[in-house]
Amino acid sequence: MATNSRLGEFDIIREIFRPLAGEDGLNLTDDVAVFSQRADIVTKDLLIAGTHFLVDDPPDLIARKALRANISDIICKGAKPAGYLLGLALPRLCDADWLQRFADGLSHDQQVFDIHLLGGDTTRHAGDGPLVISITLFGKMTEGLRPVLRSGAAPGDVLAVTGTIGDAGLGLAVAQADLRLDPEADEFLMRRYRVPVLRQELAPAIAISASASLDISDGLIADAGHIASASALRIDLDLDKMPLSPAAQSWVSQQADTALALSQLASFGDDYEILFTAPAPRMIALKARAADSGVTVTVIGQCREGEGVAVLSGGKEITPPKRGHDHFA
Amino acid sequence: MATNSRLGEFDIIREIFRPLAGEDGLNLTDDVAVFSQRADIVTKDLLIAGTHFLVDDPPDLIARKALRANISDIICKGAKPAGYLLGLALPRLCDADWLQRFADGLSHDQQVFDIHLLGGDTTRHAGDGPLVISITLFGKMTEGLRPVLRSGAAPGDVLAVTGTIGDAGLGLAVAQADLRLDPEADEFLMRRYRVPVLRQELAPAIAISASASLDISDGLIADAGHIASASALRIDLDLDKMPLSPAAQSWVSQQADTALALSQLASFGDDYEILFTAPAPRMIALKARAADSGVTVTVIGQCREGEGVAVLSGGKEITPPKRGHDHFA
Repeated sequence: MATNSRLGEFDIIREIFRPLAGEDGLNLTDDVAVFSQRADIVTKDLLIAGTHFLVDDPPDLIARKALRANISDIICKGAKPAGYLLGLALPRLCDADWLQRFADGLSHDQQVFDIHLLGGDTTRHAGDGPLVISITLFGKMTEGLRPVLRSGAAPGDVLAVTGTIGDAGLGLAVAQADLRLDPEADEFLMRRYRVPVLRQELAPAIAISASASLDISDGLIADAGHIASASALRIDLDLDKMPLSPAAQSWVSQQADTALALSQLASFGDDYEILFTAPAPRMIALKARAADSGVTVTVIGQCREGEGVAVLSGGKEITPPKRGHDHFA
Repeated sequence: MATNSRLGEFDIIREIFRPLAGEDGLNLTDDVAVFSQRADIVTKDLLIAGTHFLVDDPPDLIARKALRANISDIICKGAKPAGYLLGLALPRLCDADWLQRFADGLSHDQQVFDIHLLGGDTTRHAGDGPLVISITLFGKMTEGLRPVLRSGAAPGDVLAVTGTIGDAGLGLAVAQADLRLDPEADEFLMRRYRVPVLRQELAPAIAISASASLDISDGLIADAGHIASASALRIDLDLDKMPLSPAAQSWVSQQADTALALSQLASFGDDYEILFTAPAPRMIALKARAADSGVTVTVIGQCREGEGVAVLSGGKEITPPKRGHDHFA
């Protein structure tokens, strides 16, 4: 690692990021970080300005979204986040004030999730490159439990999701001035795009009871497809059961074709809710446990023999115009 | 992680990268990778086109340089590389053929260093961003040994370096058509810039005998400064003892001011040789062990009470115009 080991402007960054470092980060003064505790799983998500967040989003919220996009991958496996590495490719014009606000966002969420920075690397583009944020995040399972993969669903399991679906996609449209509802709804939706709400309270229950699990980053239908594919089965996904926020409900009510509107919400990315399967009896216990910690869990589908995702609305299968949001395209 | 879980063009990437995956990578089909073995240390270096490599460098060599820049950080701590995560921000025009050649480079070095891909994330720039390669690499120590940090040097220790210094910096000048020696030397120097030669054979001896160690990525003088700073002592660095390749010797012989030329070689980045300290008696054993494995180790300095790096040439202290290469500036 090279962060904070360089010259000149690098000193500014060292001063900005060193306060975020935990003990295993060796004060960000070495080439490596050490593991004083065993990590069980690891994830690495890379976010690019203009693709995963807007260039003019507040820097603290960009930082929090980047961190949460990774923490989300750990939580949905039933694990607890346990430290991270940060790689930054900075645009030429990104100054110390911007970096300090970015670091403030990291610091905020380090406290929320009880994690520290272990190390990383900071480099500046030679030309006109955009901000690229690369985070590597480690996770720890409760002793004796195994991470819940995408591949563990079985025919007969039910499919459920936390929170509400489609808000972040609508929020992006609001932030880009492509959509206006009312000020309160607009603010709520933009917030859902900028700072994912994570369901860390549910991780222990997921670890104990879920058969397969992932976080919704590509869109509900596409991510249900990932479970179906990895578990080699078919999922019936009922859009009419999809949990919606009041703001999303208000948007749906303004659309001419309800089924189409629902399928659009189900194909937006960036929800970062947990989509998971469990045998029906376990799902009942899981819902109750979720309710105790203030998280809504809604059953929206069923696993069967077969393959792919059948998208249902009004009791019959429909063909959504899009199944997911491709950050790659 | 999101690699290989997206749509469309992503399928191409899945086909290209899945063959590189090890068992812990879960076939690149999940959000996370699992650790079946404990990792002891981790590093994360980020490389940007135009800053750390040339845009038109062969894709397989770009991949190998990116991987080796990270492996170098692990080896210099006395550890063995043990798997990696790959994050890519791809330019819009980077096609499947380019990616396959990039993956071929990774595959080559995976075999050389006996490691596998664990997972990662691949995204494409929305606009005109350059290739950004973010690698996270894990390392494992021999049971009972601890990683050799920058902070362990003591007054009285001697400072030594593997291989030869300054070749990569000259190679960059050759690649940019700023320098011509003879065809053989030019080829040698460019190769040193594009594919770092790593000294993995020496890692076990470093782990047993070195007091402080790092790899030279910022330039010999700057990196000696990192040891001096982390270990809170002064290093006398004798440029006249600095090991040079025949190509670098030939370049020095053409320069009017030898001391200035040597200090330039000592301030280039990208050498990826190991710079380390050890008590004198241990250094003798270490040199012998290195010679057995075909690695040259040259003593080039001395640790004393004090601070900073004193750069010596012709028996007296000189002030080099530059102390290191700042990838950040």
